[in-house]
Amino acid sequence: MSLEIVQQHRVHGGTLRYLRHQSAVTGTPMRFSLFLPEGEGPFPLLVWLSGLTCTEDNFTTKAGAYGPAAAHGLAILAPDTSPRGEGVADDPAYDLGQGAGFYLDATQAPWAPHFQMETYVTGELLETVVAQFPIAREKVGVSGHSMGGHGALTLALRHPDIFRSVSAFAPICSPTRCPWGEKAFTAYLGDDRAAWADHDAARLIEAGAAQGRFDDILVDQGLGDNFLAEQLKPELLEAACAAVGQKLTLRRHDGYDHSYFFMASFIADHVAFHAEKLKG
Amino acid sequence: MSLEIVQQHRVHGGTLRYLRHQSAVTGTPMRFSLFLPEGEGPFPLLVWLSGLTCTEDNFTTKAGAYGPAAAHGLAILAPDTSPRGEGVADDPAYDLGQGAGFYLDATQAPWAPHFQMETYVTGELLETVVAQFPIAREKVGVSGHSMGGHGALTLALRHPDIFRSVSAFAPICSPTRCPWGEKAFTAYLGDDRAAWADHDAARLIEAGAAQGRFDDILVDQGLGDNFLAEQLKPELLEAACAAVGQKLTLRRHDGYDHSYFFMASFIADHVAFHAEKLKG
Repeated sequence: MSLEIVQQHRVHGGTLRYLRHQSAVTGTPMRFSLFLPEGEGPFPLLVWLSGLTCTEDNFTTKAGAYGPAAAHGLAILAPDTSPRGEGVADDPAYDLGQGAGFYLDATQAPWAPHFQMETYVTGELLETVVAQFPIAREKVGVSGHSMGGHGALTLALRHPDIFRSVSAFAPICSPTRCPWGEKAFTAYLGDDRAAWADHDAARLIEAGAAQGRFDDILVDQGLGDNFLAEQLKPELLEAACAAVGQKLTLRRHDGYDHSYFFMASFIADHVAFHAEKLKG
Repeated sequence: MSLEIVQQHRVHGGTLRYLRHQSAVTGTPMRFSLFLPEGEGPFPLLVWLSGLTCTEDNFTTKAGAYGPAAAHGLAILAPDTSPRGEGVADDPAYDLGQGAGFYLDATQAPWAPHFQMETYVTGELLETVVAQFPIAREKVGVSGHSMGGHGALTLALRHPDIFRSVSAFAPICSPTRCPWGEKAFTAYLGDDRAAWADHDAARLIEAGAAQGRFDDILVDQGLGDNFLAEQLKPELLEAACAAVGQKLTLRRHDGYDHSYFFMASFIADHVAFHAEKLKG
């Protein structure tokens, strides 16, 4: 598992690296960024999952997360959103294929051989990072935005052995019940909707996946977000949590949209949330 | 002077606008971003001048300045780095022409008709913004990065009636004595080097332009910056300030490079510096 350093920068007293490695899971080169705060570690780690069209670069350059992360001594790992390259299936639309991996393992052609983002993120990527950097593997949280918010919620619910804390910005709360999710799940998982519920945060919570595992889930949602009503549907997450007694801190913010300016405004709260859950 | 809103976002409780207007000075459409903190104003204003290759977008998305600006009640204006468009002269190199206006008024063909960034920024742009938004015109500071650090220093020294505070990140401290500056000044100002000194921060200070006008100048410089020795030369600014008794707070930072990650690490200090100088 050799890692190539693509770029390295000092930021907020710590070290930010853009890294690339050959993934055995996706069968492609994969890129990610990793911020380590100053010091020896081992550091608690926040895994950040980005949204549609993003690469590992968007969060890294735009979110303003590393100041708060440095203050809390938290490392941050930000993978790309899908496998990429000439031999990898793609679709002309922005919401399918490269840049739109949806953090699940595709079972359908032509996606299946490469689009294995759930196993990549929760397995190979974390193993690689933990093996090569001073990360406390028992202190890992996950957050993300939009498609990556869906990824954060579903991966946390499906892998509570790995993730001890979870939050999201403007997540796709129930992909089985919105156009982005229905399109992607049909392509990646096939027409049998029975297989879909296992990758739907609201349905996973309704089915008891969260039971006793997370004492709180933090979600921020802008009320000026163009995707709120049709794609994101936080009310479905809210109802699911209420139905099973899962605590959810869902904050609705007047005027904020779906952009990184929204995330930059509240990322410090999410970093503090994870740092608190991961300490001790 | 009608302003077109290209984008508008809520960020850190304030409002960020990307705006476009037809400039009578450059004879082209010009773009800029403007952040206004929450409240009624009038707000003190920091003018941010970006470096080579940048547009109004780089600082706006990457610097992480709006959190600190919101906390201090400071507005921030970030113009593009040059006129642009099909009828505008350009050069294939990244350090001349579009994206490389050097914040001066060109006197030479083919640049002169459009490349009038000094008059644009200190005149038309500020007039437009002050007329249309709640800005305290007597409380304006200026900062910038690299070519924009040169711009901040030279515009502050040449227009102390406009700018009450000045700082810079990794500025080109003496463009008459480095390859970037020599190339740009030859193109924009011609071969007569006598005209160049008026746009060289170190030489302006040596000539007495700063005398009694700024009680301190804040400059941050990364020591891992690839351009430090050949292009930036903070030691020339340091020597000029020492020669005339101008206070300069020049901070050299181990390991930091020329990127926005460097600026993001220290932007809060610059925002606080300007807020302090502009209050009262």
